[in-house]
Amino acid sequence: MKIVIVGGVAAGMSAATRLRRLSEDAQIVVLEAGDHVSFANCGLPYYAGGVIEDRDALLLQTPESLAARFRIDVRVRHRVTGVDADAHTVTVHDLTTGEESVETYDRLVLSPGARPIVPPAPGIERALVLRDVADVDKIVAAIDGTVPEAARSAVVIGGGFVGVEVAENLVHRGLDVTLVELADQVLAPLDPEMAIRVQQELEAHGVHVRTSTQVTALGPDTADLSSSDGSPRGTVPADLVVAAIGVRPDVELAVLAGAQVGPRGGILVDQDLRTSVPDVYAVGDAATKRDALAATGSDPGATGDEPTTLIPLANLANRHGRHVADVILGRRTGMRPSMGTAVVGVFGLTAASVGRNEKRLRAEGRPYRAIHTHPAQHAGYYPGATQMALKLLVDPETDQILGAQGVGRDGVDKRIDVLATAIAGGLTASDLADLELAYAPAYGSAKDPVNMLGYVADNLRTGETRSVQWHELDALVAQGATVVDVRTPGEHARGTVEVAQASGGAASASRTPGPDGTGSLPALNVPLDELRDRAAAEIPAGAPVVVHCQVGQRGHTAARLLAQLGYDVRNLDGGYLTWRDGTAARRAARADELAASGTPAT
Amino acid sequence: MKIVIVGGVAAGMSAATRLRRLSEDAQIVVLEAGDHVSFANCGLPYYAGGVIEDRDALLLQTPESLAARFRIDVRVRHRVTGVDADAHTVTVHDLTTGEESVETYDRLVLSPGARPIVPPAPGIERALVLRDVADVDKIVAAIDGTVPEAARSAVVIGGGFVGVEVAENLVHRGLDVTLVELADQVLAPLDPEMAIRVQQELEAHGVHVRTSTQVTALGPDTADLSSSDGSPRGTVPADLVVAAIGVRPDVELAVLAGAQVGPRGGILVDQDLRTSVPDVYAVGDAATKRDALAATGSDPGATGDEPTTLIPLANLANRHGRHVADVILGRRTGMRPSMGTAVVGVFGLTAASVGRNEKRLRAEGRPYRAIHTHPAQHAGYYPGATQMALKLLVDPETDQILGAQGVGRDGVDKRIDVLATAIAGGLTASDLADLELAYAPAYGSAKDPVNMLGYVADNLRTGETRSVQWHELDALVAQGATVVDVRTPGEHARGTVEVAQASGGAASASRTPGPDGTGSLPALNVPLDELRDRAAAEIPAGAPVVVHCQVGQRGHTAARLLAQLGYDVRNLDGGYLTWRDGTAARRAARADELAASGTPAT
Repeated sequence: MKIVIVGGVAAGMSAATRLRRLSEDAQIVVLEAGDHVSFANCGLPYYAGGVIEDRDALLLQTPESLAARFRIDVRVRHRVTGVDADAHTVTVHDLTTGEESVETYDRLVLSPGARPIVPPAPGIERALVLRDVADVDKIVAAIDGTVPEAARSAVVIGGGFVGVEVAENLVHRGLDVTLVELADQVLAPLDPEMAIRVQQELEAHGVHVRTSTQVTALGPDTADLSSSDGSPRGTVPADLVVAAIGVRPDVELAVLAGAQVGPRGGILVDQDLRTSVPDVYAVGDAATKRDALAATGSDPGATGDEPTTLIPLANLANRHGRHVADVILGRRTGMRPSMGTAVVGVFGLTAASVGRNEKRLRAEGRPYRAIHTHPAQHAGYYPGATQMALKLLVDPETDQILGAQGVGRDGVDKRIDVLATAIAGGLTASDLADLELAYAPAYGSAKDPVNMLGYVADNLRTGETRSVQWHELDALVAQGATVVDVRTPGEHARGTVEVAQASGGAASASRTPGPDGTGSLPALNVPLDELRDRAAAEIPAGAPVVVHCQVGQRGHTAARLLAQLGYDVRNLDGGYLTWRDGTAARRAARADELAASGTPAT
Repeated sequence: MKIVIVGGVAAGMSAATRLRRLSEDAQIVVLEAGDHVSFANCGLPYYAGGVIEDRDALLLQTPESLAARFRIDVRVRHRVTGVDADAHTVTVHDLTTGEESVETYDRLVLSPGARPIVPPAPGIERALVLRDVADVDKIVAAIDGTVPEAARSAVVIGGGFVGVEVAENLVHRGLDVTLVELADQVLAPLDPEMAIRVQQELEAHGVHVRTSTQVTALGPDTADLSSSDGSPRGTVPADLVVAAIGVRPDVELAVLAGAQVGPRGGILVDQDLRTSVPDVYAVGDAATKRDALAATGSDPGATGDEPTTLIPLANLANRHGRHVADVILGRRTGMRPSMGTAVVGVFGLTAASVGRNEKRLRAEGRPYRAIHTHPAQHAGYYPGATQMALKLLVDPETDQILGAQGVGRDGVDKRIDVLATAIAGGLTASDLADLELAYAPAYGSAKDPVNMLGYVADNLRTGETRSVQWHELDALVAQGATVVDVRTPGEHARGTVEVAQASGGAASASRTPGPDGTGSLPALNVPLDELRDRAAAEIPAGAPVVVHCQVGQRGHTAARLLAQLGYDVRNLDGGYLTWRDGTAARRAARADELAASGTPAT
């Protein structure tokens, strides 16, 4: 059997090597348009930043090494320009000699990847992208000053995972970096109250983060910015411009072959990575993925109209490459659906996510329950403990875990991996309480952060606790709810939830107008240890009560206590910290809006 | 309802606080014999070592703080000396005043914990133990020299998790430490080829590790050692002696109450932590745990004769404390069975495990498949990559994951937590291949170490690859197998698998007598990239072949190649590294035996 694979790197090379391990008889041809068939694409930003010093470290395999070990016929600088699916042939253009030839196949695997999206703007042609080794060579040349002189400033267009990595690495190289993002937050997979921590971290390291902003024109060493609706937002220095706003599946060949393209623009494949054209398969970033977290239960046996999604991630490219080899040789059927687990490091901060976020669930109109916690990565009494922010999204009907996010200095990737595994294993949110995770003081807590998410989920599921989200607080207060801060007076004084004056709550000595004179009032402060005695006298009965502490834990105890005393009480989910992050995110987004409307931001 | 809890700390205090959160009406009394009702027992070794500097950091809650927040009646220095289950009363001895009193209960929760086992030996009374704050105060006093002068040497009896932690921390304080372990390896939850890495790490930091050894007598500043069968093995300096050979469930009160004790010595409880005595419950280290990995399927509904085990771990104590509160207040039934997930740090090395190990599976006579890998914690091209050793144990019939172990510098706890979660979610070993784990170069690999375990498991399950374990190699060679090292000549020269001369394999220029002249021969060296061409000429057909590389990955490719060429081939599981670790462990054990028999170890 002769298998032709178009495109190397993760998916294509995984398919090729797996095919050989399964069959010495197969004839395997890999046609790659670029200079390199196997390189560390996820390492490119770090080579640009000098974190990875040796360029050769990026180059994993060569045509020669693949021929020697796997007897694979790898041809780089060979672009496939046509497919004749009926004849089972592809037209190949040799970029070195200019010659054109025809290659037959029994099975064709399309692994063309995705192309970086470049926003339309005058002058945009000088923007660089970062998808392959040639790209990173250009960026390094610009930084090092060989063309034409050393860059001192950079604009990175796009605040997604790659944009953020590029921004960090350009800072490592001493550049003054502006990060421009069209949305009102960086890192779209995270919700705003989580992503704001990453934005703050970028800003703390000198990156000028401009959300709700687009690049409208590039000068020779500047970039003109505007708001999303086109109002000018100034000009920034831009010796170097890197476009990293995302990728678009490369479906050109698939279309030439007559294959169907999915609603989101990827090559439509079934659970065994077959396109709609016989003997043509597609893998990697270009191909659709089955959606593990779609609202309608996806049937593992379905091949047609099940929900699909696009997830341009290396781990999926690798496993789908392996799977297609198994399918072609008749070894296996039925790829698991995908959920998308991702992580990024930003100046020592880690942000990671899996599955659905709240924005998307809301857009899909699906019911969900959100849980925020702020645990330390290990026992608080052991040196080096630092708090992270975790968020869990749960189906309130089934208790299914729909997604999770984490941001913190240490231990975030571990918790997201555990949660991704829990989703894959079909554990419910409440089941997380019972997970047995490795505990010693330097590694976790006897009640691990993941267990704690399970405790909270279980308390919400059973109705033992009710919570309110940071963005729901104002509405509750408008309805007359009293907000009670159950932390110590010291904590209260260092910053507390502020609620609009509409609050019909009781007066209290600790209740003074907000420091910014905006008419908001701080929460009533009744420390948890005094709550049992003071509640009756100080917290009005008959109206809703919201309790809050720093992270939600004491708030839970307070809510349980007040509920038993007869109050209609809710705990502020995630406590003061989530409220603070959420309002900071909202304030940043509002400043964007004001700037867009020409009103100076306050 | 009045609930009396005997014993605080993890299980008891989790039960008490959960009871209060669930019910303001309950009367909750905690009777604790010690001075402290809530302290960080897992932090004690690190306070002894000065890693945790502040003693107050160990003390989490006090009777006063628990009264204020939870209205719990906590009485420290109150020992319960009797139980009248019919009358529903306990007899309480106030250790401060000497008074005795009787306390009634509606429900009694026994949380007495476990007592350190002290081996019988003359002079052993001066050995210290490490279970509570008073214990660590004595150890710190001995180190600091207040009684009677600063210790310079120490013997730690017991090479389990706590013994190893104590040994490390005494080294931090500058002591000359001998670690004495009766078994032929440290860290019993690990198999020997994994534990040897921990032993080597201890030795690299100056700890004198004496396995297969016991303490037979203590002098004022020395310890006499012998082999396990009693042959003298010398005397070592021992200003300080810490006994950490394990714990025994404290069942005294349970027996007084008339409760049944399980076959392994714990208080027998059902899935809802009820003892055999009405209204008496038991939680924590003293109570039996349901065994999640027993060979016979355990029925979650069964309450009687299901398999039980003992797992003295803080995470289980916490969750069982919470569960018993829920049970008492009618909120919940059916605790999940336990598998035991644990981790320990040793001078920057991490060792962790979950579920069954190979020794125990063998002792139980159960079929299993072992898989060893040596992945880096993150992408090899990203700075700081270091190899870890992972081991997976799989049921060959069902593909169920039975256990896992890991030893390495970084990322081990994450992988064991993921594997523990996979077990809890009922994922099979092959399912691990498809887990979507967070990947960026600083955090993992596109094929994460856990995915790789899944790939290997899947290849073994489908029969695509057959493997041989390090300890099975000699027998295969005795049957005429040829061993082929498919690494490069350079790797081969730096150390290779050596097989007994009985080998009937082919002669080869690269095949020379072993450097130690013991009659063993190195493996035949045919680098993987030359194997396709050289196999027919150099590897005898008709006899079994074992291929090996450094970690097992190239070996897999070689095995697939040779199998397709018609060879009866197996891949050495875990490659040279596992063979090296395994033979090092065996050599260490044999040296112990020789020493025991009076023959000098070579």
